[in-house]
Amino acid sequence: MRYVVKTDAVVEHVHFRGADPPDLIARKALRVNVSDLSAKGATPVCYTLAAMLPERIDDAWLEKFSAGLAEDQRRYAMHLIGGDSTRSPGPIALSITAIGRIRQGRIVRRSGARVGDRIFVSGTVGDAALGLAVFDGRLTGISREHESALTRRYLLPEPRLTLGLSLPGLASAALDVSDGLVGDLEHIVEASGVGAEVDAAAVPLSAAARDIVDSAPIWLQTIVTGGDDYEILFTAPAERAGAVTEAARSSATPVAEIGRIVDGRGVRVRTRNGGELDLPRTGYRHF
Amino acid sequence: MRYVVKTDAVVEHVHFRGADPPDLIARKALRVNVSDLSAKGATPVCYTLAAMLPERIDDAWLEKFSAGLAEDQRRYAMHLIGGDSTRSPGPIALSITAIGRIRQGRIVRRSGARVGDRIFVSGTVGDAALGLAVFDGRLTGISREHESALTRRYLLPEPRLTLGLSLPGLASAALDVSDGLVGDLEHIVEASGVGAEVDAAAVPLSAAARDIVDSAPIWLQTIVTGGDDYEILFTAPAERAGAVTEAARSSATPVAEIGRIVDGRGVRVRTRNGGELDLPRTGYRHF
Repeated sequence: MRYVVKTDAVVEHVHFRGADPPDLIARKALRVNVSDLSAKGATPVCYTLAAMLPERIDDAWLEKFSAGLAEDQRRYAMHLIGGDSTRSPGPIALSITAIGRIRQGRIVRRSGARVGDRIFVSGTVGDAALGLAVFDGRLTGISREHESALTRRYLLPEPRLTLGLSLPGLASAALDVSDGLVGDLEHIVEASGVGAEVDAAAVPLSAAARDIVDSAPIWLQTIVTGGDDYEILFTAPAERAGAVTEAARSSATPVAEIGRIVDGRGVRVRTRNGGELDLPRTGYRHF
Repeated sequence: MRYVVKTDAVVEHVHFRGADPPDLIARKALRVNVSDLSAKGATPVCYTLAAMLPERIDDAWLEKFSAGLAEDQRRYAMHLIGGDSTRSPGPIALSITAIGRIRQGRIVRRSGARVGDRIFVSGTVGDAALGLAVFDGRLTGISREHESALTRRYLLPEPRLTLGLSLPGLASAALDVSDGLVGDLEHIVEASGVGAEVDAAAVPLSAAARDIVDSAPIWLQTIVTGGDDYEILFTAPAERAGAVTEAARSSATPVAEIGRIVDGRGVRVRTRNGGELDLPRTGYRHF
């Protein structure tokens, strides 16, 4: 047995809004880390929490926050093994380090994609970014039902734990989509020394996202570059496509094939008319 | 072999100043965690870093920061195994999770203090808090040499790694002094269900702190309650005092006996005249 250690931080105004329900903030902070473990094929075990909290945080907020943590600890069978809480003069910032276990040699890395591999993603893409646009007032004129579906995706990700457990031995590379489909696919191709072509028409969309793109295609850019999806993006050899379908079925998780790994560098998104989607550079340098 | 996992965050304006040299900020962030491992009797192995950075952070800052991390990674034979960097609209915030190893059953907890145990602390107490007072302009009129000694203690803690390794089997309880001598002793007595009496005259002071207290005794409060010392505070049975002296000698670390564990609750600091030092309540609630 080996341990996998992942650290992901969420910051108010960046990954959640200060007015979001405290229990959902707690659950999102934990789930982005569970999602990260899942994409490695690991099973969550325990975690630590560093909570940096401004003065305005009161006991009522903390109680709801703790209740949210407790709920998801039960859901994912994880326990809190320590941490730190400190006052901060800034936004609420929560850094969680999650520890998972995995059988030796089974971890799925981001560097294993090979030319000819197919690219897959779970669930639907872009809902969280559209949900944030609803919250921000940038996306209006859609039904209440769609609004609610999209904002829910932003507030509370659903880690793909069961699918993740079937990836070791199947996926050549994997990660969870936190920075956006294109940005995270860039992480895979950079680490693997290859390029990627995505077929825009194959990117799986929710009913809400489909309606929005049909009436205003410009939102497709937001969908493929927006963050916070926490779906699993992975590659697998073309001849394992059947095994991917079987893993999707047995984990009851929708999985779509969206493109393939090619010679070269970078990520291109092909549109229906054979053109290439214009992508804004995200440009945030991780170190 | 068992692993110990500790998470400590440092936040600009709270644990360091934005204008501090970036390499020292990095080293302090790592060292507060090394210090935490040391107080458990663990040997550092690796760590993760979540860096939450405002827009103003540029490549030059990041280079110096990375150089500081690299230097202390070598010093403590630790490697960075992962992490997260994210833009933040707030102060610089750095959360590190450090992983150490320890032989099974050898971890030193904070809950083992028993009535009659003696209380010990390494090094000198209060220098970092006085150094911060120098930076803030609250403490003036002292020599350049003293200023430099005190501010250096604030900027760059020295974890007591070698002493820490001798504590398993010797100390009944231990932790590192991050919240202040009294505040951290409160953590020990609360976890152990006992009380503590500290002899103010026995609290080890640097030459600079001694001069300051001699001319203005009011600074004693800052010294015993101020944070950021990162010395090891521990308790041991009275009959092990000789072994404590030997551990101090063999680790070349000054250790002072400053009081004893008593029946009751809370921490009292006895002054030279037999009175009790008036302590401001720190009151920050960890959860």
